[in-house]
Amino acid sequence: MTSAKTRSWWGWGNVEDAVSGEELHGLTARAAAMLPNADLTSHEAPAITDLNLPASRLSVPATLATLCSDDPADRAAHAHGQAFRDVVRNLQGDVHRVPDLIVRPTSESDVVDLLDWCTRSNIAVIAYGGGTSVVGGIEPRIDDDYAGVVTLDLGGLDHVLEIDKTSRAARIQAGILGPALENRLRPEGLSLRHFPQSFEFSTLGGWLATRAGGHFATVYTHIDDLVESMRVVTPTGISESRRLPGSGAGPSPDRLFLGSEGTLGVITEAWMRLQDRPRWRANASVVFDDYASAVTATRAIAQSGLYPTNCRLLDPVEAFINAGTSSQGGVLVLAYESAHHPVEHSMVQTLEICREHGGRLPDPARYSDSADARPGSGASDAWRSSFLRMPYQRDALASRALIVETFETACTWDRFDELRAAVTTAANEAIAAVGSVGVVSCRFTHVYPDGVAPYFGVYAAGRWGSTVQQWDDIKAAVSEALSNAGGTITHHHAVGRDHRPWYDRQRPDPFATALTAAKSALDPSGILNPGVLIDPR
Amino acid sequence: MTSAKTRSWWGWGNVEDAVSGEELHGLTARAAAMLPNADLTSHEAPAITDLNLPASRLSVPATLATLCSDDPADRAAHAHGQAFRDVVRNLQGDVHRVPDLIVRPTSESDVVDLLDWCTRSNIAVIAYGGGTSVVGGIEPRIDDDYAGVVTLDLGGLDHVLEIDKTSRAARIQAGILGPALENRLRPEGLSLRHFPQSFEFSTLGGWLATRAGGHFATVYTHIDDLVESMRVVTPTGISESRRLPGSGAGPSPDRLFLGSEGTLGVITEAWMRLQDRPRWRANASVVFDDYASAVTATRAIAQSGLYPTNCRLLDPVEAFINAGTSSQGGVLVLAYESAHHPVEHSMVQTLEICREHGGRLPDPARYSDSADARPGSGASDAWRSSFLRMPYQRDALASRALIVETFETACTWDRFDELRAAVTTAANEAIAAVGSVGVVSCRFTHVYPDGVAPYFGVYAAGRWGSTVQQWDDIKAAVSEALSNAGGTITHHHAVGRDHRPWYDRQRPDPFATALTAAKSALDPSGILNPGVLIDPR
Repeated sequence: MTSAKTRSWWGWGNVEDAVSGEELHGLTARAAAMLPNADLTSHEAPAITDLNLPASRLSVPATLATLCSDDPADRAAHAHGQAFRDVVRNLQGDVHRVPDLIVRPTSESDVVDLLDWCTRSNIAVIAYGGGTSVVGGIEPRIDDDYAGVVTLDLGGLDHVLEIDKTSRAARIQAGILGPALENRLRPEGLSLRHFPQSFEFSTLGGWLATRAGGHFATVYTHIDDLVESMRVVTPTGISESRRLPGSGAGPSPDRLFLGSEGTLGVITEAWMRLQDRPRWRANASVVFDDYASAVTATRAIAQSGLYPTNCRLLDPVEAFINAGTSSQGGVLVLAYESAHHPVEHSMVQTLEICREHGGRLPDPARYSDSADARPGSGASDAWRSSFLRMPYQRDALASRALIVETFETACTWDRFDELRAAVTTAANEAIAAVGSVGVVSCRFTHVYPDGVAPYFGVYAAGRWGSTVQQWDDIKAAVSEALSNAGGTITHHHAVGRDHRPWYDRQRPDPFATALTAAKSALDPSGILNPGVLIDPR
Repeated sequence: MTSAKTRSWWGWGNVEDAVSGEELHGLTARAAAMLPNADLTSHEAPAITDLNLPASRLSVPATLATLCSDDPADRAAHAHGQAFRDVVRNLQGDVHRVPDLIVRPTSESDVVDLLDWCTRSNIAVIAYGGGTSVVGGIEPRIDDDYAGVVTLDLGGLDHVLEIDKTSRAARIQAGILGPALENRLRPEGLSLRHFPQSFEFSTLGGWLATRAGGHFATVYTHIDDLVESMRVVTPTGISESRRLPGSGAGPSPDRLFLGSEGTLGVITEAWMRLQDRPRWRANASVVFDDYASAVTATRAIAQSGLYPTNCRLLDPVEAFINAGTSSQGGVLVLAYESAHHPVEHSMVQTLEICREHGGRLPDPARYSDSADARPGSGASDAWRSSFLRMPYQRDALASRALIVETFETACTWDRFDELRAAVTTAANEAIAAVGSVGVVSCRFTHVYPDGVAPYFGVYAAGRWGSTVQQWDDIKAAVSEALSNAGGTITHHHAVGRDHRPWYDRQRPDPFATALTAAKSALDPSGILNPGVLIDPR
């Protein structure tokens, strides 16, 4: 994707798209109404020239010179992800751990050469896609026993190399961004239909390395499910799995690299399963008077075999904040889509389940057929646009000393009530303990026959200069609570460096032993993203 | 499951259920019609006392004595799987590699104790569920540098330990057989709905260790998809993953043990995702005049998002042999089932796709609602019963010098036509090369949006005394052909010892490196099922 816009070095997305004008006015007014004691003074990011970055420790070998950059702006922009704590630290000029070099390969053999050099020279390598990690996954928080840190920016490997329309699959380079990928597939009538909130600024390789959660609330929830084969450059050789729709030949090679977060190798390309672009759509929002009934209805839908495309239960706080809807029991946002057949039948059956559990439909379900629709068909586009604006709004609030962050998990249905109660209590107590006031919201991002992926939001008034530590304290408390309640430390945000303490507890010890052994075999010098997932060496 | 019947030591299932009378008469008549030159003289298995088994090399430690058996019948029965080549070798008295001891743990701590003893004493351990491997996975074809071989029969660990009706999941011990499991779940209205052809005589642990293929033709095709968490005893400790409906916390621990075929640890229990028992069913058989159109129709269904429960395209040979139907283009067997809603709507849309591609419906689709149905509802029960009889019939034909065996693969749709042609040609040429005549059939067991799992059958006249070698030659030829055409060496039969040459080529080298390292870390003495999947040490 060519863009005339300028990427922000410190915050989300493009400088030109930052919240301003009416949007900013409305946003701060709502924040002030919700958190009346908040100090909403705006704070600006320092200039890069004022950051006092440490000098690069690495001198570039001549063969790689044309791929390398030690430009301060480049190094600062690659020093962090896009979590709340990243953005605030940047705003405060707290940018001390930066990569020594940014390397931009233009081919897979460049990646091989780079890993060879780094292995020989004891240089840590962080594979970097779009830089949207929210778990410290690409932050060079790395011990000093390495000669330096290179960030390997795969943005130059951004082509769709082959399309197989018969099998509906494509061979795609890892560095491609979401919009560029969809633009390339659209003329073929195809789509990957993987739309994480980071869609505009994240890459296929990043999605694969972190087991990203996608568009579909059911069945194909993770990018894992859309992978036919992968190509991964490791320090000991290139791994390429066979293109297969399914297999039972030993443990799945792809499943070892999915979620390996740059610790086992650098993903350079993958054959991905595609969808036909949907034609028929159905959307509905169901209001409940009682949250327990709303949860039971959602579970019944998840276990019905109807497989809705979207099945997002917003609790009353979330419904109020992000959908402007007042309700006692929350709002269930439902959608179906199909390229093959009208989806009214499925929606009608789903709404029947909702009614059985006391759900009400303030507005009738909406059905559309893109064959006869006006462009830009209303509600779902509006929601998607608002969904993609959220990170920009987060930055506007973060720069005004608000604590605005999310965290997520998954658990089986039998544990959900207890987990939500424990997490909400822990969050509220932690907010109070850091001297703040705030609210905690919950929505479901994905639902399964046997459980659910709840996604929590925290909105609290912070003290400028302390909001990172305040958030870290809250995050530790909720992580402890959700882990103790049987949840996973992450359903789709990855482990990175920030989730390590809870991941280490959650992961079976023999699996850690096996993973560490696999890492040592593939990356004997321990150069690949040290500190993420497992201890490097 | 208690049974008054006697398990056959040499062939499939129960002695009392062997093919006889009318069934035998009809079967041999059909075989004679199809292969008029076949010599159908029947051959009997020798008595176990005539086998001259080698003496056991192991003396049992006192602490494990009550769990151990060196009874010749026990050792002979555990010396082989249930492939054609196993059955014929048994019939010929070719039983030379037998385990030294059969050990039957009554608890997980027995498993721990056994692995400790075997690690200390350099004894190879073969984890054994129902003994239905068709790939040499449980055959003690093991180098002499071990002090002996123990077969660990998990049949005593056969309980359902917990049922969570809210999440529809159960904690189940690995040694339970299919029917016992379903009998235990039925009163709760639940079902695992995993029905491999080996269902009656295979176990949950075996399904997990081999990534077995199941009942559903779409979406949840493998047992992998039904796993919430697993407990695995390794020589270095017990691995237990957290019960989760989905997760993105690093590479999946379960996916390392799924398909590990007893090489990384012994699976002792798992939390499995269950289904409500279906109430509504739809069944139809669609006849095509042209196989290419039948394949295109099947692909369109697989890509439609309709997700049929069954979608089994029989080619004309398969339709004739196993469904008694003459057709130019084959028969597509379709089914839907649901516990939640009538499934007529989905079937009607599916049949519409078939019609668009020239499919004809000789009989109307059948719809049933078990709430008002007579017990034993016709066609699907009849098919299932016939499906479960096939291995018994295979034995009757194998003992009459016929070569009767199957093999399977999966490939993307773009490669299917070429793969089927190459495999069929290779099979026919190999049949001719071993001096035989025969037929080759093909059906689909599972379909995916991006590809298909074809399952081939070979029926050929053999020479008694040579049929194992004849089959091995044919199998090598078809394995070579399907592997060269881009297929997997196995979609759901596992790798075992027989598929090693092609698996070793298919598996990416760096993954082999990683898997070997993981194995060495978990099983440093290399005692677990040596020779399966990877080289032990």
